[in-house]
Parts: sequence; C-alpha cells; structure tokens
Amino acid sequence: MIQSFNSSLLENAVNELSKLPGIGRKTALRLALHILRRDESEATALGESIINMRRNICYCSRCHNISEHEICPICNDSRRDATTVCVVENVKDVITIESTHQHPGLYHVLGGVISPLDGVSPSDLEIESLVKRVSEENLQEVILALSPTIEGDTTNFYIYRKLADLPVRVTMLARGLSIGNELEYTDELTLGKSIQNRVLFSDTFPKK
Amino acid sequence: MIQSFNSSLLENAVNELSKLPGIGRKTALRLALHILRRDESEATALGESIINMRRNICYCSRCHNISEHEICPICNDSRRDATTVCVVENVKDVITIESTHQHPGLYHVLGGVISPLDGVSPSDLEIESLVKRVSEENLQEVILALSPTIEGDTTNFYIYRKLADLPVRVTMLARGLSIGNELEYTDELTLGKSIQNRVLFSDTFPKK
Repeated sequence: MIQSFNSSLLENAVNELSKLPGIGRKTALRLALHILRRDESEATALGESIINMRRNICYCSRCHNISEHEICPICNDSRRDATTVCVVENVKDVITIESTHQHPGLYHVLGGVISPLDGVSPSDLEIESLVKRVSEENLQEVILALSPTIEGDTTNFYIYRKLADLPVRVTMLARGLSIGNELEYTDELTLGKSIQNRVLFSDTFPKK
Repeated sequence: MIQSFNSSLLENAVNELSKLPGIGRKTALRLALHILRRDESEATALGESIINMRRNICYCSRCHNISEHEICPICNDSRRDATTVCVVENVKDVITIESTHQHPGLYHVLGGVISPLDGVSPSDLEIESLVKRVSEENLQEVILALSPTIEGDTTNFYIYRKLADLPVRVTMLARGLSIGNELEYTDELTLGKSIQNRVLFSDTFPKK
C-alpha cells in the first residue's frame, strides 16, 4: 500500500514510527496525526525523551542492567544482599521482579537466552561474566529466573553446568499453579510439577 | 501498577510514549526498551522526525489539509479540477481518497463531524469556510464523503441545508455492497440501499 501523504515531514515521521515493533504503517499514521493535533510542546517532550534516553542510558558494567552511570542504582545499594544474584533474560525482567519486592539481592542480565534457531549461542550472552562474578564476588546463591520455555531451560542447564564446580547454591524459580487460575485450566505439565514440588501447608500459610 | 524503572530517563520516555493513543504503559516500556537496543542514530532520527513534523507542518488556509506551506500541494496543483471539492472528516480521509486515484478535484477538511455527545457542534468544524468557498470559488460540485454513520449523516444533512440556496451540485458517496464481501453477510440496510440505488449493468461494465 503506497500512499501519498502530501508532506515529506509526515512521511518521514510515519516511516520512523513504523520501525517500532508492533507498529505498522496504518498505526504509525494514526500516531503521527495524533501528534499533529496536540501542542508542539508535547511533540517536543516526546521526541526529546526518546533522544535523551537513548543518548544517556548505558549498561551497568557489573550486572548489565540499564543504568545512567557505570554502576546501576541496584548494584550500588548497600542495603541489598550482594551475595545473592538473580539471573534474568533481559532488562524488562529486572523491572518485573523488582515489582514483586521479593528479591533483596542483585541481578545479572544475560541479554537473551540460548536459542540456536535464532542464532543466539552462549557466547552472545553474559554467561562468562556471570561465572567470573560468582568466583570474584564470592556469591552464596544464584537464582535462575529465566522463562519456563525450552530456550529458558536450555540456558538454565548450561549455566548450572558452568557453575557446578563453584561453591555456590544454584536455585531456580518454583513452577506450579498460577494464583487466581482454576485448577481445571492448568496444563498437565505444570500441574504435575506442582504435585512433585508440593510444599508444607504451614510453610505457605503460617499459623498466627 | 507502579513499577520502578531505576532510571528517570527511561521512566520519562515511557511516560511520554504512553500518552500516544492505544499505547499503554506495558507497550510503552516495550517500545522504549526496543529503542535502547538500537543504534543511537535511529533514536535520534525517530525523535527528530516527530519534533520536526509537529514544528513545521501547518494547515492549508484553503482546504485545511496538512501542509508545509500556506497552501497545500493539492490546492496548488493546477492540473486538478478546482471546481469540484470533496468534503472529508479529517486529514486521514484525504490520504485514503487520494489512494483511490478517483478524485481529480480538491478537498475540504472539516476537522470532525457533528456529534453532540462528544461536544462537537457545527461551529467547531470548517463548515462556514466551506460555504464561503462555494460562493467565492464558484464551485460546481461538492462531494460529501463523510462516514456513513449517524454523526456523518447528520453532518451531511447540515451541510446540504447550508448549501441549498447556492448554485452548486451536492453529491455524496454511493452506498452499496462492499466489493469482495459475500451478499449473505451484507447488512439489510446497506443491501436495501443497494437495491434502491441500483445502476445500469452496462454503466459499470461497459462493453468493449
């Protein structure tokens, strides 16, 4: 669908917007026309926030999370437990886990999971730097928090083997029922795991 | 859902992106993280295209379509039929109708349709300027090309009455079967209209 926009400026903005994931040319045009209807200050704020973010955000040299400095605020926070490191696939997973307020330790962002089909091999990920961190920082526990997919589990196994000779406890996220879901709609694999990994009732709901 | 992004720059970009229509905070975060993974030049191109577009696009003083100059390229095109004006709701409809290559004339962008529920009254739209154009420019035909909705038809009627005393032919887009759709799935109202407004077979498919 080739459309004439009668304006190279609009055309240019639509082209750039449609490079974003999940945004086709129709949506890009809708967004551009929306921006045209708003105040100039709003368009400037949007444009500059994008440029400033990309220009000034770098990656933490320790955990590879996004950061505005050499070391990110999480790694720099002395109140956090620096002996426990949670291994995640990407920056978004750090935000997701942080929102649970259940992980008091630090993070290590792999930058992906091993996926031969997508051409991602272990050397493309921050696995060597994790192994180095475990020995150098004297870590007590590594929590593997990758997605429960084939690629995630492959990566879990790879890291587990890499860390096998080091004196560190390697744990992974529990698999089981999703809270709020009906038992009937839980898949057999997950349900089976939740039976194998059953926990003491009194541990989950302690007596008052 | 309050999430800590560990970066005010990321937070700011997510806030700005989530002001766009149809983009919530989750999608905004996904877009921002995508931009972070790309080259800085791409983020700059995106940001600047938005700012430049908003800063430099204005509205044609004649037809109210977007334009980079006082008069838009369509109004300025001497090869177009300046006696026929197609009345559309918004800028997007100009692009849509242009893509059919079936309208050789000019446009008049209303900027919306009459909709008391949304607080849009005739005075909010470019209707007075249309009436003025019809008399001043000696227009031969006004094609009403608004959407076949209650609001669109209300606006059609309103404009039709406003132009009643002027020597101009007022036409509207044909209503009938959508090409490619099964007859069975056409709604009764549209099917009824397509029977009332039936056309000579030989007019639509002329003999060679």
